Amino acid sequence: MNDRSMPVRIGDVEAARKRIAGFAVRTPMLESARINEMAGGRVLLKAECLQRTGSFKFRGAWNCISQLGDEYKSTGVVAYSSGNHAQGVAAAARLRGMPAVIVMPADTPEIKKANTRWLGAEIVEYDRASEDRAKIAQDIAARRGAVLVPPFDHRDVIAGQGTVGLEIAEDVLAQGIGIDAVVVPAGGGGLTAGVSLAVTERLEGVDVYCAEPEGFDDHARSLASASRVANVQTSGSICDALLAGEPGEMTFAINLTRLSGGLVVSDAQAGDAMACAFNHLKVVVEPGGAVGLAAILAGKIDCTGKTVVAVLSGGNVDPALFCRILTGRQ
Amino acid sequence: MNDRSMPVRIGDVEAARKRIAGFAVRTPMLESARINEMAGGRVLLKAECLQRTGSFKFRGAWNCISQLGDEYKSTGVVAYSSGNHAQGVAAAARLRGMPAVIVMPADTPEIKKANTRWLGAEIVEYDRASEDRAKIAQDIAARRGAVLVPPFDHRDVIAGQGTVGLEIAEDVLAQGIGIDAVVVPAGGGGLTAGVSLAVTERLEGVDVYCAEPEGFDDHARSLASASRVANVQTSGSICDALLAGEPGEMTFAINLTRLSGGLVVSDAQAGDAMACAFNHLKVVVEPGGAVGLAAILAGKIDCTGKTVVAVLSGGNVDPALFCRILTGRQ
Repeated sequence: MNDRSMPVRIGDVEAARKRIAGFAVRTPMLESARINEMAGGRVLLKAECLQRTGSFKFRGAWNCISQLGDEYKSTGVVAYSSGNHAQGVAAAARLRGMPAVIVMPADTPEIKKANTRWLGAEIVEYDRASEDRAKIAQDIAARRGAVLVPPFDHRDVIAGQGTVGLEIAEDVLAQGIGIDAVVVPAGGGGLTAGVSLAVTERLEGVDVYCAEPEGFDDHARSLASASRVANVQTSGSICDALLAGEPGEMTFAINLTRLSGGLVVSDAQAGDAMACAFNHLKVVVEPGGAVGLAAILAGKIDCTGKTVVAVLSGGNVDPALFCRILTGRQ
Repeated sequence: MNDRSMPVRIGDVEAARKRIAGFAVRTPMLESARINEMAGGRVLLKAECLQRTGSFKFRGAWNCISQLGDEYKSTGVVAYSSGNHAQGVAAAARLRGMPAVIVMPADTPEIKKANTRWLGAEIVEYDRASEDRAKIAQDIAARRGAVLVPPFDHRDVIAGQGTVGLEIAEDVLAQGIGIDAVVVPAGGGGLTAGVSLAVTERLEGVDVYCAEPEGFDDHARSLASASRVANVQTSGSICDALLAGEPGEMTFAINLTRLSGGLVVSDAQAGDAMACAFNHLKVVVEPGGAVGLAAILAGKIDCTGKTVVAVLSGGNVDPALFCRILTGRQ
């Protein structure tokens, strides 16, 4: 299922679209006259925070796990993640009636552990400083005969996330809206790869950008140098969903040919975008999920007289952090 | 346009549906496995917080204002409201290019005044303790030759709000979902009247309930006694959108024949429902908009094994109040 030498094609995204139908939410595009005025153009927000499990991650997880044969019913799946991918995999496994093991840092916020446990997954904790989570997950998968579901560098995961782009294209074509650009938050680049693939295949003349927090601009720098470069830091941004160390190999191969560039925003700008979504869209967006909107509001691309789409990729944020950001007591 | 002796019929709601198409948002129904588990049944949430201006009020305002002749282009409309109706009327008037005057209490939160002004409306302030807002609005309308758009007791307003019910019926019929009950927040009863009319006309065997905050249970008591009774208090609940003094005359005539009863929740239960919407639906709901979900979560109707719909009627809440409720420091 993950022949890494085989490119992901639009047909794979279309097949994923059929698999997720009836399981994933077909999320709406939201719009606010206030946000349009702020941006000086028209801004459409693809609200993946309203997706099952609160982020786009369910799409890729389900596209992968729904294809597993019944021989895995008892052995199940394994994933490593401290957040959204964990919940996406746990929910997908639960729907298949399969066990799921999620490898999580011991210092993961209790609320994320609780959500993952509620979805029926078993949590295996590791020490972030001294242990390698991918290795732990691979060992568990080998020992149990379970399938490892990687967070982004996997054909089915990329194709699943690409359904976000397919839906954007369908919606604007159905409504006769011409769009100029799409901005997508990037961690490992799976969502960006899937969306840029689908959007550039389906729509003409649309620039796709990824958006990242300052200090974690590995995509922006990798795109500029046309080769994968890693982040120096591993923590230090409120955008906890976007702290992958470097672009994925498969995802970057797609992103390098499809993206028009990488946009970088500060944590404060991400927080402003969260407040904007609260006030004018009435949706809850997590810091990492808000960086696309943040890039637009901060003028990182010129939206004057244009129509741009930003993906609000997730809404899993602790109430205390959300309120510190919202009330400016960060 | 508002012959009060003529009953509102389903045909009026259908006509409203055509008028709002392309102007109002066709809001989604949201669902969460966690909320289903809490309720012991299936709970679908009609997310009117995602509506233009952040509440259902735009529907009725647009249904009314879109029908006004061009002779009102210069004289415009007048409304009295401290919150959601103000914004609905201001946005509808703006779309028609008409002036709007909103009569607001002098102590209205600055953010609601700012939102209404941003929509292009002129604000006339009055003293809540000593002045009669309806009288002030009527005088302004008479003096300017403007049209008064009442908040609920008006045929076109009720028919417009009824489109929420029509969309609920369409969605469940299209998806083959059988529903047992619909719960609707009630202030003056306009949304409840429109929804109960549309739902009971379109679906068989569905109970429609209104939901109110404690101390403002005028509908519950009026339904029980089959006659309109007023609230004793005029302030004292966080549900600022639901503090109308008594059921409307036209709205109650509909609600008395269509509703199965009135449910009453505490402010704390409304706050719990807001937190639940934040955590599990990722939408922002204001206190008054959450009372329907609150009634379900508090077990005010038995949802065991049933499918129930609650309308999340609005999301216009001050960030500071939202955070006090969310973090339990109310």
